[in-house]
Amino acid sequence: MAKKNAFYAQSGGVTAVINASACGVIETARQNKDKIGKVYAGRNGIIGALTEDLIDTSKESARNITALRHTPGGAFGSCRYKLKGIDESRAQYERLIDVFKAHNIGYFFYNGGGDSQDTAHKVSQISEELGYPITCVGIPKTVDNDLPMTDNCPGFGSVAKYIAVSTREAAYDVASMAKTSTKIFVMEVMGRHAGWIAAAAGLAKEEEADAPHIILFPEVPFDKDRFLKRVNSTVKKHGYCVIVVSEGVKYKTGKFLTDSGTKDAFGHAQLGGVAPFLANMITTELGHKHHWAVADYLQRSARHIASKTDVDQAYALGKAAVEMALKGKNAVMPIIIRTSNKPYRWKIGEAALADVANVEKMMPKNFISRNGFEITDACREYLAPLIQGEDYPPYKNGLPQYARMKNAAVPKKLKKRFRI
Amino acid sequence: MAKKNAFYAQSGGVTAVINASACGVIETARQNKDKIGKVYAGRNGIIGALTEDLIDTSKESARNITALRHTPGGAFGSCRYKLKGIDESRAQYERLIDVFKAHNIGYFFYNGGGDSQDTAHKVSQISEELGYPITCVGIPKTVDNDLPMTDNCPGFGSVAKYIAVSTREAAYDVASMAKTSTKIFVMEVMGRHAGWIAAAAGLAKEEEADAPHIILFPEVPFDKDRFLKRVNSTVKKHGYCVIVVSEGVKYKTGKFLTDSGTKDAFGHAQLGGVAPFLANMITTELGHKHHWAVADYLQRSARHIASKTDVDQAYALGKAAVEMALKGKNAVMPIIIRTSNKPYRWKIGEAALADVANVEKMMPKNFISRNGFEITDACREYLAPLIQGEDYPPYKNGLPQYARMKNAAVPKKLKKRFRI
Repeated sequence: MAKKNAFYAQSGGVTAVINASACGVIETARQNKDKIGKVYAGRNGIIGALTEDLIDTSKESARNITALRHTPGGAFGSCRYKLKGIDESRAQYERLIDVFKAHNIGYFFYNGGGDSQDTAHKVSQISEELGYPITCVGIPKTVDNDLPMTDNCPGFGSVAKYIAVSTREAAYDVASMAKTSTKIFVMEVMGRHAGWIAAAAGLAKEEEADAPHIILFPEVPFDKDRFLKRVNSTVKKHGYCVIVVSEGVKYKTGKFLTDSGTKDAFGHAQLGGVAPFLANMITTELGHKHHWAVADYLQRSARHIASKTDVDQAYALGKAAVEMALKGKNAVMPIIIRTSNKPYRWKIGEAALADVANVEKMMPKNFISRNGFEITDACREYLAPLIQGEDYPPYKNGLPQYARMKNAAVPKKLKKRFRI
Repeated sequence: MAKKNAFYAQSGGVTAVINASACGVIETARQNKDKIGKVYAGRNGIIGALTEDLIDTSKESARNITALRHTPGGAFGSCRYKLKGIDESRAQYERLIDVFKAHNIGYFFYNGGGDSQDTAHKVSQISEELGYPITCVGIPKTVDNDLPMTDNCPGFGSVAKYIAVSTREAAYDVASMAKTSTKIFVMEVMGRHAGWIAAAAGLAKEEEADAPHIILFPEVPFDKDRFLKRVNSTVKKHGYCVIVVSEGVKYKTGKFLTDSGTKDAFGHAQLGGVAPFLANMITTELGHKHHWAVADYLQRSARHIASKTDVDQAYALGKAAVEMALKGKNAVMPIIIRTSNKPYRWKIGEAALADVANVEKMMPKNFISRNGFEITDACREYLAPLIQGEDYPPYKNGLPQYARMKNAAVPKKLKKRFRI
């Protein structure tokens, strides 16, 4: 059998370490040049495959590929583009196969979350159906930590570390200011559906008086009275109160807090996020001066404070994906298996894409304290290893030196254009 | 003459490195035990002196004092409490002298911005007037970089580094998402009066296509049409647009952008900051999807990514303050003098408090590009050295280990209480 090329694409929201997985894929493929041809990356994810807009990663220097390990964002571009079922999106799936055929692609590596694993699974099905063999291997990625089967998702550990570090640092600031000025600090973090990222802030707390004093999870319906009571008692006890709130916090009715009639100058709803909303509520009801922060993309792109565990795992999963493909495994995804907690040990395992696709892993109930405002020891035990270790990027002129890719296009071979 | 004790206090908004100055003061005092007694710190700044709430720093281990060098926030508490003129605030000034007398304090080290240097100056005047000698030395501190005489202010370099790093990282993220999702990223930074911090984001830009594409300075009146035009052309050219906006940006009328009729659910103005305001404006007018971040306290407490230059200077200024005091210099402040730009070299100089007090250093006009959206080479040349070098704190369990102070109270000696 002639040597086949590989296709790699990044999908959905990017992370501080998705490029570490790309690095693992490309370096491992390069180490197996006898079995695998070039690695083509999709420019802007799967859209690159559909539009035959492929990037020839062989044009990148070894040094540049190595630099991907410490570069945030998605080096080849990502996209939010979900392929539906094979019947509904048949034209797209057939197009993928056409492009793969045209470029002698025999391996499909798809680096993303639940939707992407579903797509990878469907590509493996259509490849069988159309009789063009593609080895499909998913690579997990998501800051939301919501993929099943795997102990954790690459990308999450680094967000978790950023949030825990930032919470601790801001708390030192607020504590200094509280006597005559700011007594309340509210930090908003990502997590529309699950409180994994908010929970990570809890790692900053080592002693009872430490911040965060209140975590608001999407899993716990927001109760204004109970919340304000706790803010008040915290300020009385410690002089200040640090609150970490998940963007997905809802009222008992299921309505997001920020769907609260807030209008901007143009008459549009939701100008601010939930952090300013809560900060303002506290000042109005309790009179304390507040500050608030919304980290937004900073939290998931903060490669400068990435978790070494996370980087190592992201790389290992990219590497494992190629190794699995070379062993002929199809429709699978390498996963992290935790073999020991103290000391923390992990190994790479394997899951069937059929078991991963479209399943959302929620945070276990016993990870949130009974009062609904803190994490439990069980949660701490799970989270703590994921932020272990630092993996600093190289610096020049005081700034991290991230990879600058050439991202050279592979000449198109198909006459037919495909419209997205 | 009997050995005198020293008083040290932190004032105003804290920084990632104000404790490095505290470390410099205390370590240098400890090295001169033959000439200087104990270092008492004001609990919550000057309020601690007024209320005779002093912290005995001699109770802290050498290790803990050394740890101050890498600990953000204000270890002894700060405050926003401005003493007015001697005539207006005579009772406060006399009280300070009473407390200093009672605790045999002969040295007054005040670590803060313009207001604080004014206070230090007045304390030196009242001490002379009342015939109780106090050697008063100011120590500069402010993230706003707005003190005169000194080349730069400790605290600023680390914020500058945080902002430049965060801008670069977020830009990598947005660039990956722009094809099908977020095309606009707006980050709000501190700086009510001057654009120093916003300008620092410009350091992230090394090539023409790099972020930030637009910086909005308080010095440049906001012109909506010109702004939107530039956003639009940037998206057309590069596919995305990263904007860094100073919280102090104003319309030509002098009105802040966020005084724009925005109401929250309680009917209060200004729920969100200027970042969500602009992001929303862009989506409304141009239709691009946006994300926005407000770093707030995270930017000035981010000791994990502090500038080594900044840390070194903060420490050196604390050290120099004690050395100056021991040389009998009074009513002075150590400053940073830049002796060379390439390679960057600096030394400690000296300014009279009279020349520092209440003077605000604005950003030079030639630091902002003619179009008003970028920094000039002159600005870059000035800023670049200030973010040089990394000075990572020690980590344990994946988190930076910051000093935990005992902050033991000095027994009170005065019968009279003083109300703030």
